[in-house]
Amino acid sequence: MPSYKAPIRDLQFVFHELLEADETLHNLPGFDEVSPDLVDAILEEGGKICEELLHPLNQSGDQEGCQFNDGQVTTPKGFKEAYSTYIEGGWPSLAADPELGGQGLPETVAFMMEEMLCSANVSFSLYPGLTRGAISALNHHASDELKQQYLPKMVEGRWSGTMCLTEPHCGTDLGLVRTRAVPNEDGSYAISGTKIFITGGEHDLTENIIHLVLARLPDAPEGVRGISLFLVPKRLPDANNEPGEQNGVSCGSIEHKMGIKGSATCVMNFDSATGYLVGPENKGLACMFTMMNSERLAIGMQGLGLGEVAYQNAVEYARERLQSRSATGVKAPDKPADPLLVHPDIRRMLLTTRAYNEGARALATWTAMNIDLAHRHPDEQVRQEADDYVALITPIIKAFFSDYGYETTTLCQQVYGGHGYIQEWGMEQFVRDARIAQIYEGTNGIQALDLVRRKLYINDGRLPKRFFSMLDNYIAENGDNPSLAEFINPLRDANALLQDLTSWLIAESEQNPDELGAAATDYLRIFALTTFAWLWARMAAVALEKVESDSSGFYRTKLNTARFFMGRLLPQIQGLNSGIRSGAGLMMAFDESEF
Amino acid sequence: MPSYKAPIRDLQFVFHELLEADETLHNLPGFDEVSPDLVDAILEEGGKICEELLHPLNQSGDQEGCQFNDGQVTTPKGFKEAYSTYIEGGWPSLAADPELGGQGLPETVAFMMEEMLCSANVSFSLYPGLTRGAISALNHHASDELKQQYLPKMVEGRWSGTMCLTEPHCGTDLGLVRTRAVPNEDGSYAISGTKIFITGGEHDLTENIIHLVLARLPDAPEGVRGISLFLVPKRLPDANNEPGEQNGVSCGSIEHKMGIKGSATCVMNFDSATGYLVGPENKGLACMFTMMNSERLAIGMQGLGLGEVAYQNAVEYARERLQSRSATGVKAPDKPADPLLVHPDIRRMLLTTRAYNEGARALATWTAMNIDLAHRHPDEQVRQEADDYVALITPIIKAFFSDYGYETTTLCQQVYGGHGYIQEWGMEQFVRDARIAQIYEGTNGIQALDLVRRKLYINDGRLPKRFFSMLDNYIAENGDNPSLAEFINPLRDANALLQDLTSWLIAESEQNPDELGAAATDYLRIFALTTFAWLWARMAAVALEKVESDSSGFYRTKLNTARFFMGRLLPQIQGLNSGIRSGAGLMMAFDESEF
Repeated sequence: MPSYKAPIRDLQFVFHELLEADETLHNLPGFDEVSPDLVDAILEEGGKICEELLHPLNQSGDQEGCQFNDGQVTTPKGFKEAYSTYIEGGWPSLAADPELGGQGLPETVAFMMEEMLCSANVSFSLYPGLTRGAISALNHHASDELKQQYLPKMVEGRWSGTMCLTEPHCGTDLGLVRTRAVPNEDGSYAISGTKIFITGGEHDLTENIIHLVLARLPDAPEGVRGISLFLVPKRLPDANNEPGEQNGVSCGSIEHKMGIKGSATCVMNFDSATGYLVGPENKGLACMFTMMNSERLAIGMQGLGLGEVAYQNAVEYARERLQSRSATGVKAPDKPADPLLVHPDIRRMLLTTRAYNEGARALATWTAMNIDLAHRHPDEQVRQEADDYVALITPIIKAFFSDYGYETTTLCQQVYGGHGYIQEWGMEQFVRDARIAQIYEGTNGIQALDLVRRKLYINDGRLPKRFFSMLDNYIAENGDNPSLAEFINPLRDANALLQDLTSWLIAESEQNPDELGAAATDYLRIFALTTFAWLWARMAAVALEKVESDSSGFYRTKLNTARFFMGRLLPQIQGLNSGIRSGAGLMMAFDESEF
Repeated sequence: MPSYKAPIRDLQFVFHELLEADETLHNLPGFDEVSPDLVDAILEEGGKICEELLHPLNQSGDQEGCQFNDGQVTTPKGFKEAYSTYIEGGWPSLAADPELGGQGLPETVAFMMEEMLCSANVSFSLYPGLTRGAISALNHHASDELKQQYLPKMVEGRWSGTMCLTEPHCGTDLGLVRTRAVPNEDGSYAISGTKIFITGGEHDLTENIIHLVLARLPDAPEGVRGISLFLVPKRLPDANNEPGEQNGVSCGSIEHKMGIKGSATCVMNFDSATGYLVGPENKGLACMFTMMNSERLAIGMQGLGLGEVAYQNAVEYARERLQSRSATGVKAPDKPADPLLVHPDIRRMLLTTRAYNEGARALATWTAMNIDLAHRHPDEQVRQEADDYVALITPIIKAFFSDYGYETTTLCQQVYGGHGYIQEWGMEQFVRDARIAQIYEGTNGIQALDLVRRKLYINDGRLPKRFFSMLDNYIAENGDNPSLAEFINPLRDANALLQDLTSWLIAESEQNPDELGAAATDYLRIFALTTFAWLWARMAAVALEKVESDSSGFYRTKLNTARFFMGRLLPQIQGLNSGIRSGAGLMMAFDESEF
């Protein structure tokens, strides 16, 4: 059975040393209590919950799965008790508004907790995860009355939330939504339709479930401009705001899936269910995007979380499993063979995983800090800049983290040889669980289109301009430091390649709009790797300053990992760049009948 | 539920048009009956068996799995009946010696059948597949007496075969094998030990199961030089050569695996089981390699087979699923949205799969034809040359086909969006089934080491020299043809890159033997992609000659697919090359404690 140890030291490195987040956050309004000690204490305690309470339920949850019986969904053994402990500890509300009962901590801290949660148990993480997204959407768009009625219970974790978008005939293309909302006389609406793939649509963890549902008003325009958002509780709150009468909502079945089997994925039927409008009529998609953006970042954390737990276990196996001798001479003469860890190809797989994980941790935490800046910084300019970074990086975190998470859980499974394919060792579950993150909350293809079609263009291209000038400045400021050259040089090349490619792409797409779609996925990967290179250079700079006086080896390892990233992983961008420049014509030359 | 249509037209293109295999094979001793009509008839009939008999059992086999009960293994419903039909048709013995009851057809034909079998039902394919390998090992190394006793029943398919190598503490490193063989007075041996991961170790399809077991004689030297090969029947043949007394062999349990759930993966216990020596004492590994080389090629076919069936289904889905509008204007104005197939990112995923599949089909068939040449050509020089090609390409087929098979079944699953993650659609099974091919019969890391440590060096480097000079000649002969330039130019660059890298690698490894291991996996991929580029250039050349007079569109599509391969997939080699040249030092700089 796999094990998990929260990577506290590396989280601390990123938070305290790389980003120097303590001071930045402490100075933001509402965060005066944020201190290094507080952050460390939360990491320690959160890490323990993940290691001791949630991870032990991960494999059993996969094996047992959720059970559907006559409209009721039972989560795997132990989930209900663990959920109670989890909400009693206040963990789901780390970053929620204290006025609603939350802890009022920075998003930056909540993100670090999210990584650990995903390492420990992705299926479990989805129940509080969707609730957090729903809280965010309601907080931004619902009436004060709805907020007062629903948010405190949701922040407490006694009521959970869902996101009801997909219907059998429409996923990506929400303009095709058919679920109807007919006004009732009392100002509420009667919601009717079928939604599929609803995570946590029904389960036994909470007293009530609050569905956020996209539906169409009777006279709504066609397409995405005619979709409105509704709050539809499973049970209607009674006069004491306790769950009362059952609403016209029922779970028709749950899906049998490749993975995340402890998470209930439901078909939800709405039959004249009572719902309440959230935000303006016909603006439902924009309101839902508040939730989706938050979820997309959380989904990215699944790639990181699973990459981390897979790495830890694969390293342990590679230390213990004795197989063949090192090519450079016997390393363990007292044993019948050397440990796997002596073999370069094993190290390639492990270090690929590690270099991505640590790059991802840095990028996720940097992005989360920008969320806090965007929400709270007194200077409008700073808020806007931070918000631009978050908007630009969101599809990259969602898509690249989940792509590399799948790739690296697969590599770590490979380290186990045949045992990796056997369920009891647990490695194949990480792969199956990682796979969904590339698909849900907008497939990674959609994330890539969001990047190239939208994020490159909005506000006259302000987002990439801002980001590229930050990279340019960093390179200009550090390019003369000879001890950093081995890191800055590859970053400089990658940055130049990415910026050239961006100009090329924008120019080409004016002739042929399909160039954007043809480039999107590979372009996103180049963007991600270049961003990682920037953070790896920054991490190396911090490590270089401390490595001499350090006896733990931490900074030495950090430097070596930075070198591995630059030498072995970053060069991927060369082939991706050439591939993109071969153009959309290669794909579009085929008639549909030729496939 | 997924469907499958045998890709007869493309198999015919490769066999008849690209390789012009009819004449080559017809002229080999023993193949005078081989004719285009015969080959086409076998493809048609074999295709039908795969489409109609075996594919319908694929998903139900996955869902039901094999059952273990008190030492007995029950295969999924329908497997037993299908197996009977399959052997009655003579399908397992296509390429077996007519003297043993086989059909005496070329390996080239058997390979094409193997692809279809793997598309239809990988789990099923393993039962006859292992038997075929065991027949080959026995045919080469067993005494005439053993051959006469066992081979006819195995060729007929009434008895099946296994390969018992792995033990709990040793997989790759067979030098650690502990199973013992103690001589009995009658010349047989008493075999005792435990073997794990034994495919088809126990099942209900055949009357008897013939285990080929690696074990150690009492006075054997340590390591791989002390391993011998034994034939150990489940039931000892009686005086009529029918299965008689139960031997000391039992199945202790079956594994619960990520995929290939219809294939029984067994723990086999040998308790003083009667066994018979195959080949010389202490030369067991060499004898087993006859079987392993054949199996490695067959495992590669799983990547191709699964890539093909995944492609077919994903195309169908992309045609039917309506989602969003084309970036270049509405394509299906009568429908609420355009089919997925209009979107370039969907085409990228489909064409990646297609270009790999068709390249793989060409390489597999070319390799199989070389097996036939190596076995039968009257000229010793031709035989040696063909054998060299097979030896060089075997690890590439095993590793690259299984790698790309996993990547492309994943891409095809992605085309389905959320539905791809749901079991009932069948796409996630292809991914799970594809995953094992990267692991068993020697992990892909081991294949890569076989290529760089062994195949580059044996016989004074004759294998790569021969192969590279064939590529050089092809480029020299066709480099002046302007209509081929778009294919030959990228091939020329790839060939130069690969040959430079090979020289670099051999030189570097003299300083540091770890360079080979550090380069191996990425080097194998570059080698594979370059080989595909050569075959794509050849396929394009054939298509160019025929495209003008063709009304079916087949050659036009072939040319477009060749262009896609050259423009979009081949450039990967750039980044892989840079990565390798960053050297082993990047990985080996880490102390073991630093992971």
